Amino acid sequence: MQILLTVAYDGTNYAGWQRQENAVAVQEKLEDAISRLLSRDVIVRAASRTDAGVHALGQRASFFAPDLRVPLERLPEVLSAFLPTDISVTAAQEVPENFNPGFDAKQKTYLYNIYNSPAPNPLVGRYSAFVPQKLNLAAMQQAAKSFVGKHDFTAFCATGGSAKTTVREIYFCETEKEHDLIKLKITGNGFLYNMVRIIAGTILYAGMGKISPEKIPEIIASKKRENAGKTMPPHGLVLVEVKYSI
Amino acid sequence: MQILLTVAYDGTNYAGWQRQENAVAVQEKLEDAISRLLSRDVIVRAASRTDAGVHALGQRASFFAPDLRVPLERLPEVLSAFLPTDISVTAAQEVPENFNPGFDAKQKTYLYNIYNSPAPNPLVGRYSAFVPQKLNLAAMQQAAKSFVGKHDFTAFCATGGSAKTTVREIYFCETEKEHDLIKLKITGNGFLYNMVRIIAGTILYAGMGKISPEKIPEIIASKKRENAGKTMPPHGLVLVEVKYSI
Repeated sequence: MQILLTVAYDGTNYAGWQRQENAVAVQEKLEDAISRLLSRDVIVRAASRTDAGVHALGQRASFFAPDLRVPLERLPEVLSAFLPTDISVTAAQEVPENFNPGFDAKQKTYLYNIYNSPAPNPLVGRYSAFVPQKLNLAAMQQAAKSFVGKHDFTAFCATGGSAKTTVREIYFCETEKEHDLIKLKITGNGFLYNMVRIIAGTILYAGMGKISPEKIPEIIASKKRENAGKTMPPHGLVLVEVKYSI
Repeated sequence: MQILLTVAYDGTNYAGWQRQENAVAVQEKLEDAISRLLSRDVIVRAASRTDAGVHALGQRASFFAPDLRVPLERLPEVLSAFLPTDISVTAAQEVPENFNPGFDAKQKTYLYNIYNSPAPNPLVGRYSAFVPQKLNLAAMQQAAKSFVGKHDFTAFCATGGSAKTTVREIYFCETEKEHDLIKLKITGNGFLYNMVRIIAGTILYAGMGKISPEKIPEIIASKKRENAGKTMPPHGLVLVEVKYSI
């Protein structure tokens, strides 16, 4: 029996999703919690290996548990009790034995938050990048929409990724302002290494007047990283949802 | 020249507003920042001595600075640079020499956040109390409205306060649901020790069916603390705004 969990976390104090030497990762905390429950070693596989400092509301992670004695509907509560308060399991479901939470992901949605106000706000500072300059929201929205479609996103990819192809399809990319918070919501069939943070930086540059929104298709076509905007910091990024066809 | 600042902070890591021995307070951090700017000792006085763990978006604090060399409009940016990221100065204005940020406050607004969902959410957990049970929102709203008016709030006051009178006037008290977050917004001419947290606990009890909303006037009239609900934890509380007639 394979179990698929929905996991939320504040990534501030973690070296990212993936377990590693000399740093605390979310994977390690989750594996430890499940290990305590099952009294044996456990390996979990995730939909997305989020970077250090990146947050999640809807990360997905699975593990095999033929020996699970807790009813599925109680699993989120039980596991959350074994987890630190900055990690929480919000749902659990059974999936087929051959299900793979990474390969089988059909769609991922991320949110990138920019706090746009003259002074920083400590109550949103953990979950947003602070930008004090005045921004052109219409230009940002126009830039955002230009990313929709199937493109080779080489220009929006940091080195160090392991993807076989750099073609991805973006289904939705919009900015929305809520008080002083500018939210970029982006949905696609997958994302390259740092891709959302570079797209967010490029949309920010459009808002600052550093890049004309009309140039986005050209920047994509150039396949040159230096033509795109800067990589935004990790703490503004939230993995919101992962969708499967199951 | 007296300067009045607007101050925002994430209270999680502080022992409250007021400077004290053996614990780090927001007042201390702010006084240290101003002292660095003016190269001398400084004392600031606040509108509200928020408790340990309580947050603020619109705390007000003043100090005397005949020797200030920085233009007022640049002061928020300069002071914020001397402060840790969980404290920020968002505005500065000049006030008369005889102004007192505590006594002269005409109106204070607080927000109490309850996260109401089966599983906790680490991204709002720092700024809300987690309540997994189903709640009756209509009963909470009815209970909230019953607090409006001029009352003796002895039943909603923890021991240890120093107020001369226990009569306060509430101008606004409403609950509002935004996704899984229930926000209690309350405005009054002042609040007794722990008053907002006890009112929030009483409104929560109304939502749980432990207290009938019709009984709130009786509970107020009883002047007995044991008739009201529990004191809610500090991390759900945010001081939003302080108003003056200046």
